[in-house]
Amino acid sequence: IRRNARHPLENLLTKLHPADIASIYKNLTELEREKIWNYISDQSIIASAVLELEDSDIIHFFENRPLKEIAPIIEEMESDDAAEIVRLLPDDMTGELLKMIGKDEMSEVETLLTFAEDTAGAIMNTSFFALQEDMTVKEATKTLHKAEDVEMVFYLYIIDSEGKLSGVLSLRQLILNTPDKKLSDIMSREVINVNTDVDQEDVAKMVERYDLLALPVVDENYKLVGIITVDDVIDIIREEATEDIYRMAGTSDGELLFGHNSAKVARVRLPWLLITFAGSMVSGLVVAFFQGKVTQFALLVPFMPVIMAMAGNVGSQSATILIRGVALGKINPSDIARVTFKEMRVGAIIGLTCGLLLSGVSYFVDGSAILGLSVGVSMFFSLSIAAFTGAFVPATLIKLNFDPAVASSPFISMLNDILGLSVYFGTAVMFFRYLG
Amino acid sequence: IRRNARHPLENLLTKLHPADIASIYKNLTELEREKIWNYISDQSIIASAVLELEDSDIIHFFENRPLKEIAPIIEEMESDDAAEIVRLLPDDMTGELLKMIGKDEMSEVETLLTFAEDTAGAIMNTSFFALQEDMTVKEATKTLHKAEDVEMVFYLYIIDSEGKLSGVLSLRQLILNTPDKKLSDIMSREVINVNTDVDQEDVAKMVERYDLLALPVVDENYKLVGIITVDDVIDIIREEATEDIYRMAGTSDGELLFGHNSAKVARVRLPWLLITFAGSMVSGLVVAFFQGKVTQFALLVPFMPVIMAMAGNVGSQSATILIRGVALGKINPSDIARVTFKEMRVGAIIGLTCGLLLSGVSYFVDGSAILGLSVGVSMFFSLSIAAFTGAFVPATLIKLNFDPAVASSPFISMLNDILGLSVYFGTAVMFFRYLG
Repeated sequence: IRRNARHPLENLLTKLHPADIASIYKNLTELEREKIWNYISDQSIIASAVLELEDSDIIHFFENRPLKEIAPIIEEMESDDAAEIVRLLPDDMTGELLKMIGKDEMSEVETLLTFAEDTAGAIMNTSFFALQEDMTVKEATKTLHKAEDVEMVFYLYIIDSEGKLSGVLSLRQLILNTPDKKLSDIMSREVINVNTDVDQEDVAKMVERYDLLALPVVDENYKLVGIITVDDVIDIIREEATEDIYRMAGTSDGELLFGHNSAKVARVRLPWLLITFAGSMVSGLVVAFFQGKVTQFALLVPFMPVIMAMAGNVGSQSATILIRGVALGKINPSDIARVTFKEMRVGAIIGLTCGLLLSGVSYFVDGSAILGLSVGVSMFFSLSIAAFTGAFVPATLIKLNFDPAVASSPFISMLNDILGLSVYFGTAVMFFRYLG
Repeated sequence: IRRNARHPLENLLTKLHPADIASIYKNLTELEREKIWNYISDQSIIASAVLELEDSDIIHFFENRPLKEIAPIIEEMESDDAAEIVRLLPDDMTGELLKMIGKDEMSEVETLLTFAEDTAGAIMNTSFFALQEDMTVKEATKTLHKAEDVEMVFYLYIIDSEGKLSGVLSLRQLILNTPDKKLSDIMSREVINVNTDVDQEDVAKMVERYDLLALPVVDENYKLVGIITVDDVIDIIREEATEDIYRMAGTSDGELLFGHNSAKVARVRLPWLLITFAGSMVSGLVVAFFQGKVTQFALLVPFMPVIMAMAGNVGSQSATILIRGVALGKINPSDIARVTFKEMRVGAIIGLTCGLLLSGVSYFVDGSAILGLSVGVSMFFSLSIAAFTGAFVPATLIKLNFDPAVASSPFISMLNDILGLSVYFGTAVMFFRYLG
C-alpha cells in the first residue's frame, strides 16, 4: 500500500461511527482486520471501535499486540469499559497492563475490579459528574463548561460536603432556574439509587421500571461512587435474555467465543448432553424393566415416541412459561404454588384431548379396545404429570434461591421421558392384567 | 369506609411512583383492585399507574368502566401510550372513545393508529419538542420554559421552515453556548433518524448500536413527525426476547392474557402440541415399519429413548445457537452456510463421543458385539444429522425471509425423532443382516 493512498481511507474511517467500523470489521478477512487499525491514527476512535467488537475479537485484538500499544488505547476508555476489557484478558497480562496505564485511570479500574462481576459496582462508571449542594445555578453551569471527559450528562447528581448523594437535578431544571438559586433549593431530594453490590439484573429492572436514563451507585456510607447509564442497561438486558435462551436450550453462549474450532465447541456442549445421556439411560432401564412384564409389549412400542414427544413438550412449555414469567415479574414468588397447580390443570386438559385422540387412533389401527383405553389413559396421566413437573421443578429451584433456568428444557424433557414411560407401561400392565 | 379514613391512603398512593402502585395492585384481590382507584383523585396518576399494569388488567380496567370515566384518563396519556391502549380495546369501544376525547389528542391518536403495528410510526410519540433552526439560543431557552407537556427532553431536534428535520442539539450544548448564537450554527447536522415504516426491532437495534437516548421519526418527505425514547426501546427489547423465548419453546405468550382460565390456556397451547402429536405419529409409523423387519427388534427397544433424547437435544442446541446468533447480529446472513456446516462437524464430534459410550454400555449389558456396533454407529449418524437439521431448517427459513423462530425446539425435536429412529433401525437392519 502506497503511503499516499492511506489518507482517503483514513478520512472515511474517522467519519464513521465506531459501531459501523466494528460492523465493517466483522466482514473482513483475518489479514484485512489487522491492517484496518493502521488507517486510524486517532487512539480514541480505535478504543471506541474495539469496544464494539465481539468478545472473542476483543481478546484476539489485545493478545496480538505489545503492551505498550495497548496501554494508550485502554487509557482512552471510560473506566467501566476499561475494567470490562481487563476482565476479559488473561490474568498474566492484567498485572503488567495495569502498571503501564496512567495512575488515575489505573486506580479507578482497580477499584472496579474489586467488585464481584455482574454487580452494580463492577459495571458502573466512576468518572461521573457531580455537583456540590451549596453551589448556585451559575457556578454549576460554569463547572459544566469545564467538564468534558464525562459520560453523557442529563441528570446532575448533587452531593453534600462528605460526598454523600443528596439530590438530583435535570439539565432542564438548571436551564429553567435563575443563576443565583442554590442547587439545594431546586434539586429533588428523592433519588432512586443502588448499592454497589446489587446484581446487574436488578439494576436493569429498576431502570426499566422507573424509566431512568441513569442510576447513581452509592457505597455502604451512601457516598456517590459511580453511575450506570441506560445504554449499559440495554446491553445487560440483551445479555441476560441471551443467557436465558441458551441455558433453557441446555447450551452455553460461551461456545461463540471459540468461533471456528468445532472440537472446542463440542467440548463446551458435551457436559449438558452427557447429563441427558445418563437420564436417557434411565429411560432405557424403565423400558427394559417393563419388557419382561407386559405380554403385549410389542403392541406398545410404536406409541412410545408419541408419549415421549408429547410429555417432553408439554413439560418444557410449562417450564418456559414459569421461568420467563418470574424473570419478567409477571409471576410473583407468592403466586408460584397457584401457577404450578394451574399448569397441572392445563396439562390435564391437554392430556384429556390428546388421550382421546390417541385412544381413537390406536383402536382404529390395532382394533384392541384395551390397548386404546390403556394408551389414552396413560397419555392423560403423563401429560398432567409433565405439566406439573415442568412448573414444579423450576418453582422449587426458585424457592431454594437457585437459578431456575438450570431446569432447562432438556432436563425437564429427560425427567418427563422417565416419568412418561413409567406411567405408560405401568398403565398398560394394569389394564392388560385386570381387563385383558 | 369512612369518608375521613380516605386521606392517609390517598396521600400515600399519591406519593408512590406509578410503577409501585401497579405492583401493589398485582397483589390485591379483585374487590380491592376496584376500590384502589377511588383513593386517587388525580387523573394523571391513575393514567400513569394503569399504563404500568399487565395488558390483561388494562383491558379489564377499561372494559368495566363507563366511557365518560375513561375519556379523561386517556386524555392524560401521551399520544403513543393512548394509541397503545386503544389498540388493546375491542373495536366497538374504540369509535365511541375517540369521539369523547379532546380533538387534538384524538387526531394524534388516530394518526398513530394508521401505522402498521410494531413499526416506528405506531410506537412514536407525536407530542415531541422541536425548535426552528433560525432561533437563537436565548429564544430556544424561552421556548423550553414554556414547554411542559412533552416527553423527557435531552436531545433538541431542530427543523427548518417546512418542518423537515435539519439538525440536533443536546441540552448541554444549549447551556454551553452564548445566548445570541443561532441554533443552525451550533447544531449537529448529522441526525440518525428512522422512517415511520421501520420495524420496531430495527429501531431497537439502532438505538442500541449508537447508544441513543431518543430517535427522531420522519415521514417520506423527511418531515419530523415523532420521537421514540429509550424507555420505549427497553420495553421493545424485553418484549421481543420474550416472544422469541416462548416461540422457541413452542408456545405463545398470548396465554398470559387469559390468566386463571385453564381451558383457554390449554386451547392456546394445543395447536403447537397437535403438530408435535402428528409428527410423533410418524415416528410411531417408523417404529412399526421396522418392527417386522429386524429379528432382534426387542434388543433395540430399550435404546430408543437414548437415541430420541440425544438427537432431540443436539438438534435444538444447534437451532437455538443459529436463531439467537442471527437475532443478535453475531451471525451474518452470509455466514449461515459456514455455521450450518460447522454445526454438522460439532454434531459429528459429539456423535462420535456418545456413540462410543453407547457402544460400550450396550456391549457391557447385552454382550452382543453387533448390537454394540450398531447402536454406536447409529448414534454417530443421528447426532450428525440432528445438528445439521437443527441449523439447516432455521437457516433455510431465514434465507426465505420467514421467521426462523417458527423452527422452534419442538419442531426440530420432532423432525429429529423421525430421522433418528429411521437411522437407528435402518443401521440395525443392515448390521444384523450382513454381520449377524
